[in-house]
Amino acid sequence: MSAKRRKKQQTTKIQPKRAKNLSPGTVSYTGKKTITNTQLDIIDYSKEHYNRFETHAIEDAFKYEDSTHITWINVNGLSNADDIITLGNHFELHPLIQEDIVTTNQRPKIDEYEEYLFIVFKMLHYDDNELLTNEHVSMVMGKDYVLTFQEAEGDVFGDLRERLEHGKGRIRGVGADYLMFAILDAVVDNYFTVIDFLSNKLELLEDKLFGDKEDPNITEDIQELKKEILKIRKAVVPLREVINRLEKIETPLIEERTNKYIRDLYDHIIQVNESVEIYRDMIWGLMDMYMTTISNKMNEVMKVLTIMASIFIPLTFLAGIYGMNFKNMPELDFKYGYYYLLGSMVLVFFAMIWYFKRKKWL
Amino acid sequence: MSAKRRKKQQTTKIQPKRAKNLSPGTVSYTGKKTITNTQLDIIDYSKEHYNRFETHAIEDAFKYEDSTHITWINVNGLSNADDIITLGNHFELHPLIQEDIVTTNQRPKIDEYEEYLFIVFKMLHYDDNELLTNEHVSMVMGKDYVLTFQEAEGDVFGDLRERLEHGKGRIRGVGADYLMFAILDAVVDNYFTVIDFLSNKLELLEDKLFGDKEDPNITEDIQELKKEILKIRKAVVPLREVINRLEKIETPLIEERTNKYIRDLYDHIIQVNESVEIYRDMIWGLMDMYMTTISNKMNEVMKVLTIMASIFIPLTFLAGIYGMNFKNMPELDFKYGYYYLLGSMVLVFFAMIWYFKRKKWL
Amino acid sequence: MSAKRRKKQQTTKIQPKRAKNLSPGTVSYTGKKTITNTQLDIIDYSKEHYNRFETHAIEDAFKYEDSTHITWINVNGLSNADDIITLGNHFELHPLIQEDIVTTNQRPKIDEYEEYLFIVFKMLHYDDNELLTNEHVSMVMGKDYVLTFQEAEGDVFGDLRERLEHGKGRIRGVGADYLMFAILDAVVDNYFTVIDFLSNKLELLEDKLFGDKEDPNITEDIQELKKEILKIRKAVVPLREVINRLEKIETPLIEERTNKYIRDLYDHIIQVNESVEIYRDMIWGLMDMYMTTISNKMNEVMKVLTIMASIFIPLTFLAGIYGMNFKNMPELDFKYGYYYLLGSMVLVFFAMIWYFKRKKWL
Amino acid sequence: MSAKRRKKQQTTKIQPKRAKNLSPGTVSYTGKKTITNTQLDIIDYSKEHYNRFETHAIEDAFKYEDSTHITWINVNGLSNADDIITLGNHFELHPLIQEDIVTTNQRPKIDEYEEYLFIVFKMLHYDDNELLTNEHVSMVMGKDYVLTFQEAEGDVFGDLRERLEHGKGRIRGVGADYLMFAILDAVVDNYFTVIDFLSNKLELLEDKLFGDKEDPNITEDIQELKKEILKIRKAVVPLREVINRLEKIETPLIEERTNKYIRDLYDHIIQVNESVEIYRDMIWGLMDMYMTTISNKMNEVMKVLTIMASIFIPLTFLAGIYGMNFKNMPELDFKYGYYYLLGSMVLVFFAMIWYFKRKKWL
Amino acid sequence: MSAKRRKKQQTTKIQPKRAKNLSPGTVSYTGKKTITNTQLDIIDYSKEHYNRFETHAIEDAFKYEDSTHITWINVNGLSNADDIITLGNHFELHPLIQEDIVTTNQRPKIDEYEEYLFIVFKMLHYDDNELLTNEHVSMVMGKDYVLTFQEAEGDVFGDLRERLEHGKGRIRGVGADYLMFAILDAVVDNYFTVIDFLSNKLELLEDKLFGDKEDPNITEDIQELKKEILKIRKAVVPLREVINRLEKIETPLIEERTNKYIRDLYDHIIQVNESVEIYRDMIWGLMDMYMTTISNKMNEVMKVLTIMASIFIPLTFLAGIYGMNFKNMPELDFKYGYYYLLGSMVLVFFAMIWYFKRKKWL
Repeated sequence: MSAKRRKKQQTTKIQPKRAKNLSPGTVSYTGKKTITNTQLDIIDYSKEHYNRFETHAIEDAFKYEDSTHITWINVNGLSNADDIITLGNHFELHPLIQEDIVTTNQRPKIDEYEEYLFIVFKMLHYDDNELLTNEHVSMVMGKDYVLTFQEAEGDVFGDLRERLEHGKGRIRGVGADYLMFAILDAVVDNYFTVIDFLSNKLELLEDKLFGDKEDPNITEDIQELKKEILKIRKAVVPLREVINRLEKIETPLIEERTNKYIRDLYDHIIQVNESVEIYRDMIWGLMDMYMTTISNKMNEVMKVLTIMASIFIPLTFLAGIYGMNFKNMPELDFKYGYYYLLGSMVLVFFAMIWYFKRKKWL
Repeated sequence: MSAKRRKKQQTTKIQPKRAKNLSPGTVSYTGKKTITNTQLDIIDYSKEHYNRFETHAIEDAFKYEDSTHITWINVNGLSNADDIITLGNHFELHPLIQEDIVTTNQRPKIDEYEEYLFIVFKMLHYDDNELLTNEHVSMVMGKDYVLTFQEAEGDVFGDLRERLEHGKGRIRGVGADYLMFAILDAVVDNYFTVIDFLSNKLELLEDKLFGDKEDPNITEDIQELKKEILKIRKAVVPLREVINRLEKIETPLIEERTNKYIRDLYDHIIQVNESVEIYRDMIWGLMDMYMTTISNKMNEVMKVLTIMASIFIPLTFLAGIYGMNFKNMPELDFKYGYYYLLGSMVLVFFAMIWYFKRKKWL
Repeated sequence: MSAKRRKKQQTTKIQPKRAKNLSPGTVSYTGKKTITNTQLDIIDYSKEHYNRFETHAIEDAFKYEDSTHITWINVNGLSNADDIITLGNHFELHPLIQEDIVTTNQRPKIDEYEEYLFIVFKMLHYDDNELLTNEHVSMVMGKDYVLTFQEAEGDVFGDLRERLEHGKGRIRGVGADYLMFAILDAVVDNYFTVIDFLSNKLELLEDKLFGDKEDPNITEDIQELKKEILKIRKAVVPLREVINRLEKIETPLIEERTNKYIRDLYDHIIQVNESVEIYRDMIWGLMDMYMTTISNKMNEVMKVLTIMASIFIPLTFLAGIYGMNFKNMPELDFKYGYYYLLGSMVLVFFAMIWYFKRKKWL
Repeated sequence: MSAKRRKKQQTTKIQPKRAKNLSPGTVSYTGKKTITNTQLDIIDYSKEHYNRFETHAIEDAFKYEDSTHITWINVNGLSNADDIITLGNHFELHPLIQEDIVTTNQRPKIDEYEEYLFIVFKMLHYDDNELLTNEHVSMVMGKDYVLTFQEAEGDVFGDLRERLEHGKGRIRGVGADYLMFAILDAVVDNYFTVIDFLSNKLELLEDKLFGDKEDPNITEDIQELKKEILKIRKAVVPLREVINRLEKIETPLIEERTNKYIRDLYDHIIQVNESVEIYRDMIWGLMDMYMTTISNKMNEVMKVLTIMASIFIPLTFLAGIYGMNFKNMPELDFKYGYYYLLGSMVLVFFAMIWYFKRKKWL
Repeated sequence: MSAKRRKKQQTTKIQPKRAKNLSPGTVSYTGKKTITNTQLDIIDYSKEHYNRFETHAIEDAFKYEDSTHITWINVNGLSNADDIITLGNHFELHPLIQEDIVTTNQRPKIDEYEEYLFIVFKMLHYDDNELLTNEHVSMVMGKDYVLTFQEAEGDVFGDLRERLEHGKGRIRGVGADYLMFAILDAVVDNYFTVIDFLSNKLELLEDKLFGDKEDPNITEDIQELKKEILKIRKAVVPLREVINRLEKIETPLIEERTNKYIRDLYDHIIQVNESVEIYRDMIWGLMDMYMTTISNKMNEVMKVLTIMASIFIPLTFLAGIYGMNFKNMPELDFKYGYYYLLGSMVLVFFAMIWYFKRKKWL
């Protein structure tokens, strides 16, 4: 199918707003963030040249497309479907791609087209309330341009932009494929940060668990952590497959020298993945550990009860005996009867103590 | 084997009613719903043309078959085997297909024939009692027709029909293969709805678990949820394989441009599948969580008992001592003996309180 | 190796009785059932012709072998090795096959030979004591004959024989390969029956678990069920592989039109297998559920104890105070001292009740 | 690399004693058994001929090598490295093979060389103390000889030798490859015996678990069983791979007719493997079962306590009331006060009994 | 890409210090150990020749590169990035390799380049505090040289150096590929040592668990062990893949005769891996075992409590009865009332003892 024909199809098909059960290929934002103004952040660079500006007018983006420079258009805000459609049609993006860009629960994937690659991935970060949020990001990589679509402005690409501006690293001298790699590399680097944060939370929880103070919320905390690790997995596992496939794709869009970097990136995502699996194991194990600490505490409680009751119940019984009002109870008239009884009570007391010591309960 | 020969075989072989151990290829409805009248819902459309009517007479369906339009015949009610056989013979469906159409516990699968594709899948929905029910649906996709067979009229295809009627999306301009895709897409979309419902039930159960009020039915609720997730899995996992194979089938029945859509559909079913696996993990984990909450509660109960008993049993013992009737008990004659004793009892009381405070039980 | 040579080898090698560590290829019955008389049930049929008779004389079977009809020889009783050897040598069965026929713990498998296929499978049924028993069955399918070997007469093939006799279904008009398929189909159908029975037992156990009455045997029942599901798995899993391989075998013995039926059979065995896995999961989960019900019950027991003890121990202490015999206890002489005390006891009582109500223990 | 060159290398390289971190290819016994005299058991046979003798002189073995007979040299005792080296050099075994022969913790494997196959496997048996011990065995199979190396004389090959001597089975008439198969077959047969023994231990443990008598060592017994099953797995799993590869090797050393037997052997080892997995599951499940029996017992203990305490604590409180010494306690002066109280105590008693009966605790 | 060009790129790109989000290919040490002086340990050898010296000047290493001898340069200390860059540039190492050398959390991997192989692996050892530490090691193997980069001087290569010096084994006569193998072999051997140590810790923990003395830290110890086994897995699992790939690589750098040794190495790493999995299973099982021992102990505690309470609470009640002050209590006036009561108390006492004996609680 030629790009021309595809373009035509989409212009006839796309609807302004998409509800459930709409036709596949309909572009309708499904996320929560509502930035009414789509904001474009355009960087245009070559080895010698660097230019960056921001705009809200989609059309401003187009004048850079045909230049000999590499153009990186970062779109913030997906709620205005018209803007996405305008941009998408200009770059001749397939309707399904346009749909995926605004479908925020689309899982990470890679689609190969003749003239561009389309990659969906997730950006993860802990927000101010220490809640893990994930952001839907799409990327289109063409011959001399890269488009990225975010729900809201993130801070993950900051360093990358700086490197672009100051010409650090090899980034300025090479093509759009290297830029694509650098963006993915920034994302994977970010995963490491997220996992470090999670690992801290896990260690805090472990300390809480082994600590003296009881915290009835630990079960909920563990459950929370489980959900977070599942969220991370949901972002990482498919991205691993994406990068794996990226390594194997045969396309003129990716130069041979970039492959080494993608292979490196694949190593990193595997490392992320392994860490996720390990932390998953650890979190799942936490529940067992918590169970044993609960049982241990109950054991201690029971011991205190048992020791107190076992010592004093028999003694109370003895006292009860001599509290009876029988007429004929000779012991009551013994001169030292009371002292004899006190003495035997002390004996019983120490016998019990010795018994519990021997059982190592004391 | 030519379609002619196949047709012959089936007309001699098919029996009116099929019990267990009947010959394979026998058409006998195995479900519970008994709609005596098979109901046909026929949509005939092309880019310019749309026509829909309902009928109970099988033969009415045949006049549309040879037209240049796409014909979608939806059959509601599988209990009348004769109707299915009549229809099946007309479209030259293999006896095994006719059997699978009415065998409601047939698992999802795809069979390739020279002149049509046969797909079995399950429709899931929660009924009015919040019970998950699954409905057996079969689909035959030929060159210019699609047949679907349902046990009872469902509401999943409503939006699709509307899109067909109003010519929304690309659906009217393309072939039967796209209609097949659109039907499967509606089914997978429906799975998302079902999973959302399950996820709500899961969260309610979690709240119940962490809530104060004890609910002795939680174990049964968890078991119920386990069964539901297994039911969903049973529908989703084989459908994933079906769509995967659909993607790879090389058949003139599916146009090349539809492949992109099927790939997209595969992405969706994988997403459903991952969600199912995640919820499965969560539900299985619930049991552990419930166990810890039970243990936590028992711990609390035990502590109350231990504190009460540990404080009052020794005190009662002390009171017991001075309730004894020994003649010679000098303390009893002390002027302030009673007050001294009360004082030491208060001391013991606070010593115990301090002890339990230090142990963080209070 | 030609069939001739093979025949020679076996006639020199076979021993009358085989103990452990005998040479491989030795035919020695390893099962428990001892039917001294091997019983043959021979059905000879073609499209127009049907003939069935039973015999104890092996040689009677041979006169039908060369006819143009399909011959199905069902052998009941494997304890008489000589009979098996006679029959096996006549049909030129490889010594290893003869060994496998009488080795009742041989796992399901398929062996391809040039002139026949050899399939081992297991028949499962619950006996009168509701114990799951498995029966070793072997089948040899040659160009125009099928041999089946059972330990004891089963009832699984009854329907099949009837269909053969009355010419129902397609079975009479087609070759030995279809008969082989029909036999396997009857076996897989039987697995569904067995699983249904197991599912009933599982549900009964679940009801018992959630029921009021305590049943100390539940653990043993669960263990029993575990063993049964493992037994079923041991029969089903390898048979699935057998049928899978049967689907892929390239042999002139299986006609192309039978392949469709075998594929269908494969669908069924996969369905059986999935059910087994699901029930396995359910049974393994039962233990956890049982554990929580035990803990729940213990929780309830503990609460009763705690409430009774927490209410009455302090009250008893109060009574103990005023049971002391101190000379100087002014309260004892108060006119309404007793009533004041009774009043405060009632207060304490209701305070405790209120406390436990607030804790939702009452 | 030619056999000549290999031989040269090894004669220069081999060291008398090998400690950790020695050069790879160094022959140094790592086991525990110290039979100072290497003992050779040589069987030389052909269809008509059988000769067996034992010796301690390695050189005695060499005269048989070039004969037209099949020679099986079984070496007992691996502690004398020089003997192994002498023998190994004579048969031109690669230094790595010589190392593997004496490295008793080498896992089962198969190595293909041009002129021989080298197989390492484990022999398992329960010793007199019912401890599972594994013995390292290596086998070299050349054109007309088989070498086996054992740490100590085992009894597994006894039947095989007898069959060789008396010409039972097909063993005498065929080549060294069949002997290799027969040896492996004896080993796999032996695994069945070991698993039977384990299965008996498992059943005994289960009986213990469900029995009345408490046995505090059950946890240790289960742990022991776990270790044994892991030990068996460690022997069986890699041997399965070895036999699988043996089936697929293309080498002139194995005749085509032996393949059928190896396939059979593979069936057997798979069966062993499945049994191991099933028993593993059972043993792992034992822990859960034990846990529930403990909890059940605790439940019973708690019930006795609760019933006793709930009945007698209130009664004791009642008695305590009327043990008080208040001046003004009118009930004390009632004529039948005592009997009224006794009556109400009996009432309370039966009320409690009724309560516990209703709760099904009695 | 030619080596020349690569060299150029790296000299322009490398930064002195690398923080997070630096450009990929930037060489910046990420570990903790700060040895300011990079230390080189150079061994230069051939069959007849052996020379070793240490230096801190990177340039000293270069004069040996072009000799006909094999040169092994071991670099201790990675904190001085300039040194690594100087060395790396001299040997024309790709910037990504230089980055990996100093990135201490890089997971084990193998990268093939035209002129060298690059392998990353981990060295494990227990430090003086019995903490498991892992050290990042990289190795570059070229035609006639091997470079190894360690964070700090380890002792794992000591034996290897000795063998090199004294010409033991085949090591001196063969190429750099064999040296590479010998280094990896030393590392895998070291893993066995580490696992042995872990296995000892595991057994100690098991003894603790089954021992009488309670140790509240057992949960933490198990958790610690879990983390260690995960650490080992993280080193072993990817190295297994590395060696597997090493076995399959087709490169002129590895001579054919070395392949046999690599295959052997692969056997060893699989053995390590299996042990790791087994110990992992064992450690995970420990938690369950610990849980049962806790429950068992609680059971015992509960029994003591129940027995004491059940015996003495009824007796105390009896004593309470006759401690009441009713006017009309005829028993009190019986001559032997007291003795009758004592007698019945003894009866009750022994009845309880008998009851608990029958229940096997005593």
